[in-house]
Amino acid sequence: MAKKAKNAISPSREDDYPEWYQQVVRAADLAEISPVRGCMVIKPWGWAIWENMQRVLDGMFKETGHENAYFPLFIPMSYLEKEAEHVEGFAKECAVVTHHRLEPSPDGEGLVPAGPLEEPLVVRPTSETIIGVMYAKWIQSYRDLPILINQWANVVRWEMRTRMFLRTTEFLWQEGHTAHATEQEALDETRLMLDVYAEFAEKYMAMPVIKGEKTAEERFPGAVQTLSIEAMMQDRKALQAGTSHFLGQNFSRAQDMSFQNQEGEEEFCWTTSWGVSTRLVGALIMTHSDDDGLVLPPRLAPKHVVILPICRTDEDRAAVLPYCESLKQELAQQAFDDGQVKVMIDDRDLRGGEKNWYHIKRGVPLRVEVGPKDIAKNGVFVGRRDTGEKTPWSRDEFVANIGKTLEDIQANLFARAMKLREDHTREIDNLDDFQAYFTPANAKKPEIHGGFASCYFVEDDSVQELLKRLKVTIRCVPLAADDEAEGTCIFTGQPTRQRGIFAKAY
Amino acid sequence: MAKKAKNAISPSREDDYPEWYQQVVRAADLAEISPVRGCMVIKPWGWAIWENMQRVLDGMFKETGHENAYFPLFIPMSYLEKEAEHVEGFAKECAVVTHHRLEPSPDGEGLVPAGPLEEPLVVRPTSETIIGVMYAKWIQSYRDLPILINQWANVVRWEMRTRMFLRTTEFLWQEGHTAHATEQEALDETRLMLDVYAEFAEKYMAMPVIKGEKTAEERFPGAVQTLSIEAMMQDRKALQAGTSHFLGQNFSRAQDMSFQNQEGEEEFCWTTSWGVSTRLVGALIMTHSDDDGLVLPPRLAPKHVVILPICRTDEDRAAVLPYCESLKQELAQQAFDDGQVKVMIDDRDLRGGEKNWYHIKRGVPLRVEVGPKDIAKNGVFVGRRDTGEKTPWSRDEFVANIGKTLEDIQANLFARAMKLREDHTREIDNLDDFQAYFTPANAKKPEIHGGFASCYFVEDDSVQELLKRLKVTIRCVPLAADDEAEGTCIFTGQPTRQRGIFAKAY
Repeated sequence: MAKKAKNAISPSREDDYPEWYQQVVRAADLAEISPVRGCMVIKPWGWAIWENMQRVLDGMFKETGHENAYFPLFIPMSYLEKEAEHVEGFAKECAVVTHHRLEPSPDGEGLVPAGPLEEPLVVRPTSETIIGVMYAKWIQSYRDLPILINQWANVVRWEMRTRMFLRTTEFLWQEGHTAHATEQEALDETRLMLDVYAEFAEKYMAMPVIKGEKTAEERFPGAVQTLSIEAMMQDRKALQAGTSHFLGQNFSRAQDMSFQNQEGEEEFCWTTSWGVSTRLVGALIMTHSDDDGLVLPPRLAPKHVVILPICRTDEDRAAVLPYCESLKQELAQQAFDDGQVKVMIDDRDLRGGEKNWYHIKRGVPLRVEVGPKDIAKNGVFVGRRDTGEKTPWSRDEFVANIGKTLEDIQANLFARAMKLREDHTREIDNLDDFQAYFTPANAKKPEIHGGFASCYFVEDDSVQELLKRLKVTIRCVPLAADDEAEGTCIFTGQPTRQRGIFAKAY
Repeated sequence: MAKKAKNAISPSREDDYPEWYQQVVRAADLAEISPVRGCMVIKPWGWAIWENMQRVLDGMFKETGHENAYFPLFIPMSYLEKEAEHVEGFAKECAVVTHHRLEPSPDGEGLVPAGPLEEPLVVRPTSETIIGVMYAKWIQSYRDLPILINQWANVVRWEMRTRMFLRTTEFLWQEGHTAHATEQEALDETRLMLDVYAEFAEKYMAMPVIKGEKTAEERFPGAVQTLSIEAMMQDRKALQAGTSHFLGQNFSRAQDMSFQNQEGEEEFCWTTSWGVSTRLVGALIMTHSDDDGLVLPPRLAPKHVVILPICRTDEDRAAVLPYCESLKQELAQQAFDDGQVKVMIDDRDLRGGEKNWYHIKRGVPLRVEVGPKDIAKNGVFVGRRDTGEKTPWSRDEFVANIGKTLEDIQANLFARAMKLREDHTREIDNLDDFQAYFTPANAKKPEIHGGFASCYFVEDDSVQELLKRLKVTIRCVPLAADDEAEGTCIFTGQPTRQRGIFAKAY
């Protein structure tokens, strides 16, 4: 992180990463804390990014044979109780609806809840239980399987410490819920959706991820196997960006979701669930943004290009605006990523510098300044957000190459993020190195530490205590590492073929 | 409604319209009652229709300068209390969150709500109050105006009697919320969005609507003016399909949403709100469907064409399936309504009749049967859902004309619905006729009545009682009727230029 004379965001990443994050969100006008405890308001620029994520993911889900549907917001309390681990996992953070109207307070001051419900309703923290009840009704025979359904929805998990996009009481997500006739089919589905998430993260978010399996400790409550994708943020902490769960027959048994197989016997279904949330917006911000604010990968940017007319006089204006307008039309006809280039003109009456910084902070990939001098040369002056380069182009060349330039930015962001991860991932074979790696060199900057450690390990309760003290978690056992050579668990000394990724995490 | 020998839906519209509706929803697999009181599950075919509605409306909102954003699900109780009429309107039907976790019951049996909230939260019944609080923060000067924001969201209004899509405790909708510097601009916005809704209803849903203004009695709680679009269902009842509210300064005053105008003076903003919901799916069903089930206007149909291979033997199959596949490819390349024709092949192993009825009940506009005989003639056998016609076509002609055929179906559905409305709308000038018009001829079929009545009227409390007895409401004062000649109020005998549309309504 090279220091420049002046940056738009204060503090810098190096000075105070968590506060830098909040300031980037604010400067890009992505979201805002709301007066409702733990809930945020997603503002138009932030929403447009989420909308792009939704569009791409929705297309990928449909490509892989899934359909959308919608299930109720409320879950009767008794449903949650059906799966023991599940309720254990969610009971402590539920919004509970207990009344169905408000009436004037007996003391004449304002309103009080009235109309108590016979059974309290929980605002869904996730929908396995309510969806399972429906599937149990829909499934009779193997002919009704598989069911491959996704829903886009809001969910609520009462959080004590919240951070915009990363951890909020209400958040938006998609949750896929599938039911299958065989274990293998459900396992394949679990893996397929992990691959979809990984492809989305790498190709669209330009965010490299590690695909892996969670240890028992970190599994989704009620799951047999939880797969996840893990990404490294610029403070070298891990962020779990998507999960895909193989639920075995745990939920189908609890909910009596059974079917008659081809031999005429009753069997419980094999189910999966998988989800990503608005947390991805937080991951996107922390992967690419710099000390001048948001940096957006072109494939998810609401706008690819902003044209900034530079006019000092009305005469300038008369010449510059039509030039900008025709440039916009030309650019908007160029192809990029299965669509067209998205261009806007910002002709607000603001000083040029102010306007430039406005779009820098919002992460628009390319800024194009057009003044009378540029027009005289049939040129444009282009600022590239990812590298900070500013280059004069001939107008025709710029237009002809716009798709390629955007692809180049996308690729550069991915490469940069990959390099950060590679630079801060180490294979560690002994406990001393492990502790040193995760112990901040500077007590004043407790956040700065080594990064990802790849270590042989055996799951053991004794390990948890040390990890807790270091604030480190086992992120996953990478899927690619199935054929690992034998090694020695750095915690217990036991022989093992299992290597895990250890990291501090969001 | 001509009777046919055999229909797929029982009862028929004539025999029992409300039950017919439920059966159409079930037969088309659109939605299902959930075990959560008053909430429904929207199944994939129903969701796909809503998704198409969302896509088109979202495009129209963006075309007219609006952006999407997202605001919290929960509203602190005190916010609702700020606008007196507003809380009066919604307090009786609120889901109230009072606790934020569940814990084991002291008697050891299951769970009980725990962690009481200091201030109860209401699940949003609509978002004027929470959005207003944010706007008040965002708006300082006239330069910050207008704010033109829409959100797609779920809302909850506790309903005692629910009906799928038409009235459910949780429903999905969009709510636009705008703030303006002048009254005229806010009035223009209110009218613009009504026009957007009317265009959507008529062009996409093929559902003719009357644009009008609500009387004081029927206004949105807190609004100065409520505009609506009203459609006639096949039982001649009215359905309010969308509303656009001019809120004046009622909400901005209650929420201190003010700005400094160009002269440097503080003024309250002028605000609007407008919304349509999943209720539109109910309106779509009741406008076009018949005694064989759902009928979908092509512009909103998830699929335009289903190809049904007819194969008795494996030999048939080897010839028929490739023919169907290439037909699908050809059709899918044809243009319809800003996109391509959406085609599916249904090659499930079911009897031909069963398969045909399956798609009839789901309202697919065109069914194409292809068997060895059709292939021999290079033909297809086409069933048209709207008219019931079954016609052999040459394959090439069918493909070349597919866009035109779909447009023809869309136009036919609109014309048919318009004719129904015209046939059942009457200008009524005296009270006796009015009462007769709304009194069922047959006591056993209380639903069958005249339809829409257009009458001179003056707003007067005495009118309400009569209307209540007849179960009739004033739907609106049509906007087109501003230059009405003078007449006499049929209830009070007072002179007036105001004519209203009276109807029984959903």
